Amino acid sequence: MIRIGIVGYGNLAKGAECAIAQNDDMVLSAVFTRRNPESLTIRTPDVPVVAMDDILSWQGKVDVLLLCGGSATDLPEMTPELAKHFNVIDSFDTHAAIGEHFERVNAAAVENGNIAVISGGWDPGLFSVNRLYASAILPQGKDYTFWGRGVSQGHSDAVRRIPGVVDCRQYTIPVPEALDRVRNGENPDLTTREKHTRHCFVVAEDGADKAAITEAIVNMPNYFTDYDTTVEFITKEEMARDHSGLPHGGSVIRSGVTGWDGECKQTIEYKLTLDSNPQFTSSVLIALARAAMRMKERGITGCQTIFDIAPADLSTMSRDEMRRKLL
Amino acid sequence: MIRIGIVGYGNLAKGAECAIAQNDDMVLSAVFTRRNPESLTIRTPDVPVVAMDDILSWQGKVDVLLLCGGSATDLPEMTPELAKHFNVIDSFDTHAAIGEHFERVNAAAVENGNIAVISGGWDPGLFSVNRLYASAILPQGKDYTFWGRGVSQGHSDAVRRIPGVVDCRQYTIPVPEALDRVRNGENPDLTTREKHTRHCFVVAEDGADKAAITEAIVNMPNYFTDYDTTVEFITKEEMARDHSGLPHGGSVIRSGVTGWDGECKQTIEYKLTLDSNPQFTSSVLIALARAAMRMKERGITGCQTIFDIAPADLSTMSRDEMRRKLL
Repeated sequence: MIRIGIVGYGNLAKGAECAIAQNDDMVLSAVFTRRNPESLTIRTPDVPVVAMDDILSWQGKVDVLLLCGGSATDLPEMTPELAKHFNVIDSFDTHAAIGEHFERVNAAAVENGNIAVISGGWDPGLFSVNRLYASAILPQGKDYTFWGRGVSQGHSDAVRRIPGVVDCRQYTIPVPEALDRVRNGENPDLTTREKHTRHCFVVAEDGADKAAITEAIVNMPNYFTDYDTTVEFITKEEMARDHSGLPHGGSVIRSGVTGWDGECKQTIEYKLTLDSNPQFTSSVLIALARAAMRMKERGITGCQTIFDIAPADLSTMSRDEMRRKLL
Repeated sequence: MIRIGIVGYGNLAKGAECAIAQNDDMVLSAVFTRRNPESLTIRTPDVPVVAMDDILSWQGKVDVLLLCGGSATDLPEMTPELAKHFNVIDSFDTHAAIGEHFERVNAAAVENGNIAVISGGWDPGLFSVNRLYASAILPQGKDYTFWGRGVSQGHSDAVRRIPGVVDCRQYTIPVPEALDRVRNGENPDLTTREKHTRHCFVVAEDGADKAAITEAIVNMPNYFTDYDTTVEFITKEEMARDHSGLPHGGSVIRSGVTGWDGECKQTIEYKLTLDSNPQFTSSVLIALARAAMRMKERGITGCQTIFDIAPADLSTMSRDEMRRKLL
């Protein structure tokens, strides 16, 4: 049994707790929190909630930690620090900073003989590995990534900071015509605006200036100016009824050509349709944790990504069983 | 440069020749044939066509052989035999016999310190590895594979053997309603008939009994009896004009649930839309050849499948570059 520790207890951590329960070869050993442990009630019976300050006393009692913090401030500190003492898995997703994060985590893990897998999940993660397979197979081609229809938490939070806004759920939506053109192998050059639209469901304070809120949203730099954005005001009750989930998904498409003169179009699409983004992301982390344990047993340490992991290591099946059932 | 030898010169081999030309780190060293080498003209300038009887004299002059024979009779003999003397890649696709093929190839490769990758391509191959990723991530779920719209060469050949038939192209077509239900996460139980239909374009001899041909097709055991089959008679000219390509593709879909009570549906789809089945299949073999060479350099020998190959080994990019560009 692989003994897993979960660090944090937000949406991602709660998803990981559910995912562990779906996998027979794993057990949740402890949840670590910066909050008062007594304030937390978790779902798995008889599993302790432990203060982060006591985490080092759990060395040797967990095989691998799932770090379920955020990429903005938590993981850049937490992953290299904990990789000194534990095998760790994170979902660091600030694409531009992955190189630096990798170096810091790798140094800590190598020095202490641990294994770390960073940037797990679906993007980065499964989308990344599909970009890799597809570009290796179709060297003459072009990559497209479409996100959605799904809730962007960063954009929802940005709208919530606007005066007069009580709540917001922002959906990122691929433009159907753009998707069709890519799937047809047209290899279009698409601007940001041509690829995605944004749809904000907003609950406003009583008497708030809705026109001003709308203006503030659609003109917000970085977040909305490059997109066609729809703002729709709804009630608190409608928000609770229709937008309580965190669905997401998207497609990675490589559109390439083969043949002596590039005469044949070949299209590879990897598509996710997710009712729950955090539950799916954590399900990926759990499979990566299994692979990390297998690799560690073979003497592999240091920082790894999904690119470095032989797919067989993710599965509970034996090599023989997977050749028989899946090949 | 990876020096590649191609064994055979049918559609798959011709696709491999084109794929090598698309990859800067590879060179075609020779094509080996059982035919009279002088009867063959290949596309790549200044590359010798060599009789199969002379292949052993090429040890040390090619790094890896792509075995482009058929799974029915060629590869079961050829792959284990040549794995004694060379690193080899094949596309063995008789699913039920893969276990036995693996054992024979593995024994030959291990004994002689070579590496072999079997069952490369897209099914088995990319479809298989996607079944593996998806089942590892969503342990509570169900797999579906749909093939087509595409030409099945086996079914086309079977129809050609019917008296009165001059030529046939058989298309396998997924049933749109079945695909929709699976994509919607309904997890339906589908019969063979409910998943695919078959469409035969047939050129008949002058004066042939078309009704009798149609009866012979739709009642052919194993090939057609379990399917709803449409038979359409066309002219030789229409066949040449509209059906000269070998398109194919399909989807691997895993429909699973996550959450404490399995309350969230999660769907993963991997979809290929291919103008040329053999060109795409050989493009996969080429990437597997690159990975095999990398693994061999690290001392790995014996028979491998796509399950055993870390995705990073398929790409020409360095680890650093792929983390920066693809992760």
